[in-house]
Amino acid sequence: MNRRSLLKGGLLTGLGLPFVGMKDVIASPVAGRKKAKNIIMMVSDGMSIGTLNMADIYANRIFGRSSKWLGLYRDNKAVRALMDTASASSLVTDSAAASSSWGGGMRVRNGSLNVGMNGEKPQPILQKFKEKGKKVGCVTTVPITHATPAGFCVNIDNRGGQDIIAEMYLGLKFDVMMGGGHKYFGEKRTGGNLIPKYLTQGYKVAENRTEMLALDKSKPVLGLFAEDGMPYEVDRLHDQELIKSTPTLTEMTMKAIELMKDHKDGFALQVEAGKVDWAAHANDLSGLIFDQLAFDEAVGKVLEFAENDGETLVIITTDHGNSNPGLFYADEANKKFDSLQNFKHSNTWLLAQLNQSFSEQKIIDLIKENQGFEMKSEDVKSLLVHFKDIVPGQLYNESNLPFYEYGKILGKYTDVQWAGMNHTGDYVELTMFGPGSENLKSFVKNYELHNFMLKAAEMPESFLVKA
Amino acid sequence: MNRRSLLKGGLLTGLGLPFVGMKDVIASPVAGRKKAKNIIMMVSDGMSIGTLNMADIYANRIFGRSSKWLGLYRDNKAVRALMDTASASSLVTDSAAASSSWGGGMRVRNGSLNVGMNGEKPQPILQKFKEKGKKVGCVTTVPITHATPAGFCVNIDNRGGQDIIAEMYLGLKFDVMMGGGHKYFGEKRTGGNLIPKYLTQGYKVAENRTEMLALDKSKPVLGLFAEDGMPYEVDRLHDQELIKSTPTLTEMTMKAIELMKDHKDGFALQVEAGKVDWAAHANDLSGLIFDQLAFDEAVGKVLEFAENDGETLVIITTDHGNSNPGLFYADEANKKFDSLQNFKHSNTWLLAQLNQSFSEQKIIDLIKENQGFEMKSEDVKSLLVHFKDIVPGQLYNESNLPFYEYGKILGKYTDVQWAGMNHTGDYVELTMFGPGSENLKSFVKNYELHNFMLKAAEMPESFLVKA
Repeated sequence: MNRRSLLKGGLLTGLGLPFVGMKDVIASPVAGRKKAKNIIMMVSDGMSIGTLNMADIYANRIFGRSSKWLGLYRDNKAVRALMDTASASSLVTDSAAASSSWGGGMRVRNGSLNVGMNGEKPQPILQKFKEKGKKVGCVTTVPITHATPAGFCVNIDNRGGQDIIAEMYLGLKFDVMMGGGHKYFGEKRTGGNLIPKYLTQGYKVAENRTEMLALDKSKPVLGLFAEDGMPYEVDRLHDQELIKSTPTLTEMTMKAIELMKDHKDGFALQVEAGKVDWAAHANDLSGLIFDQLAFDEAVGKVLEFAENDGETLVIITTDHGNSNPGLFYADEANKKFDSLQNFKHSNTWLLAQLNQSFSEQKIIDLIKENQGFEMKSEDVKSLLVHFKDIVPGQLYNESNLPFYEYGKILGKYTDVQWAGMNHTGDYVELTMFGPGSENLKSFVKNYELHNFMLKAAEMPESFLVKA
Repeated sequence: MNRRSLLKGGLLTGLGLPFVGMKDVIASPVAGRKKAKNIIMMVSDGMSIGTLNMADIYANRIFGRSSKWLGLYRDNKAVRALMDTASASSLVTDSAAASSSWGGGMRVRNGSLNVGMNGEKPQPILQKFKEKGKKVGCVTTVPITHATPAGFCVNIDNRGGQDIIAEMYLGLKFDVMMGGGHKYFGEKRTGGNLIPKYLTQGYKVAENRTEMLALDKSKPVLGLFAEDGMPYEVDRLHDQELIKSTPTLTEMTMKAIELMKDHKDGFALQVEAGKVDWAAHANDLSGLIFDQLAFDEAVGKVLEFAENDGETLVIITTDHGNSNPGLFYADEANKKFDSLQNFKHSNTWLLAQLNQSFSEQKIIDLIKENQGFEMKSEDVKSLLVHFKDIVPGQLYNESNLPFYEYGKILGKYTDVQWAGMNHTGDYVELTMFGPGSENLKSFVKNYELHNFMLKAAEMPESFLVKA
């Protein structure tokens, strides 16, 4: 029973308080009780709290400023909650069930996209917003057909059917769909190339950064910037070719906003940093932190937009923890952590270069050049053990890369350790800014966000999912 | 920017709002801007966010109710922040530097208790409160001379000097000091038995649960209920002798409140669940969760007191993360997690029973009886490897127990995994309830709590530590 209850009771809004000259208060939910004309939901997929913390520590130490996300807290501008992320089938969700909980307003079993335990097919939230005249879209760094965007868009009982999801999107005619996943749309698609069909439907299809930056509002947009997931930010940053060809999450996000922001009925956008989750699964520290920082850059730009706009509810969160990394107690923990700034490539990139024909010295040199460490001989030897079945000259299959072992070795150099290689049942950080945020309680269950967003945007009662 | 700024600006308080009939609002900080006559700071030492989450999940699944701590969030009654826990010497603090930051208002190097990098000795907060007439005290499940209580009480550059700290306490004449650590006071103390001196000083000394429950307000109190740390809650719960002899954290806490609550100038109390940290260091799941739940029980009782009292600021937090445990994605994660309810003893207790003379079957039976699992032969064999240097019949030295290995084996049965065996640099959960809590920002640094508490209690300006 604190001030929040007071505010909910509407005491403040009924008082006609003198807001003259208090510009930033006028834009706040308390002052105006504004409708959220626009909703932007930003998801750092698979972000354990340690990931958020370490990105913030990195920003403070290396950039000399707070992360944008936690800057909201330092400036006391946001409303926060803990979110329970369970699915219908488990205390530990997958991304499909998690996104479905937001997208469809009910918990489904892991692996399902908006198909309930009894076959229910709740209408996904972007379909609802579209039906009421909003522009809608998703951007992500993983395939645009992946679980998190798909959970806002479609009903299908198996998240693995990305070829099918790509076809379902065609029928939805959403306004902006951008990310990776070309192979689920283009010539490599099982079931035939969909791109000609998208063009016939009136879509503009962008396949590289230049085309993406040139997009305008005249047509709905499909952006496909990688066959599967887009590159890790740390790899993109140090590859001239990728810098030219591949848009950043921030660029995709701000383009999506640019294309939808002047629409009279507003817009709803989901933004996903999908490879934060992939990096956590791989215990890939530089993949993780630099993708989290790239997400944070997008958060900063979105907040700037929302602060000026005044009618946009921004929701920033994750769908579940993953691997629970932490910076551990040790001699010179600070110095070890700071060594992250010397990484030019992810573990995933680095391990894909290696094979058993490499001499120990060649591997030491490769690691030094790309991750900045003078790795000890014993560590390189223990890594090489995991390449022993590989024919010299043959590149390792990505799915068999020794992520665990290399993550453990790097733990000695960076002081960051991991509790596993999968999702966790942790409650997660949820942050809101803008109109509607005043209604957020300190603890929510993931599926409650569905009605929350609909109410903030003043959608029809009939759209609300009954408990 | 948001309602919190509004409230800080004092708009609400100046309005003479009609609070008649709003009983719970009247007791809130917003309504009255009350002074915090009493302050209770509750610390679950070394509590990673996963520890808080898992205890809440356990409470929901097994008790059918929320944890008391997160119940505050579900009822939307508390103010929350993230807290940066770094020390002067490291991004990852130890408990001495962490408690000093709160107790002395400045960051010190790891290992130090309120002795700064340049030899500064800021007056510890309980000395300040005592000087201004409050009753003051600490209760903990580890030695009362341990880092967390000591950081509120004394200045000493080495936390290891617990014999000395016990003597420093003698001079302070604080009102309630209760926990473990008899060996730092009694006959086993290096430097002589202090207990006669405490008695001469006018103290009542309690050495078991019965004596503790009989304490009254006539004298200051020293309670010593174990030679070193008190037993883990899961071990106490299943040992008739310990149930009789050993008070719970809740019993100590409520006794401390009972002894101090009617004092006209109020009181300040620190409550520590110190063995949550020890359990995390040992990757000891049942030690961890049941001690966290015992802490939570104390939180519930303290909140009941504070809600009725209306003049008590309750601060609930931890000093740092530890080992970042998480419930991981797996088949039957729920069932595996629920198996925690079958534990009758901690890993620490169990491993101390074992020696290499035990047959495999005997160990399987012992684990079945005390932790509920039908452990596989291969797992027992892998555990026995770590006992190979032990002479049959000889009990293992506690400090050499294979905590890591057993924690890893249990991970397969409980689905809970750990990222390490030490403190982490994670930002941590901080919760406040009661007068003064309205001034909490969403992000704080640990040392800022010192002035925060002093201001909430309206202590003299001269007590505040300058930035």
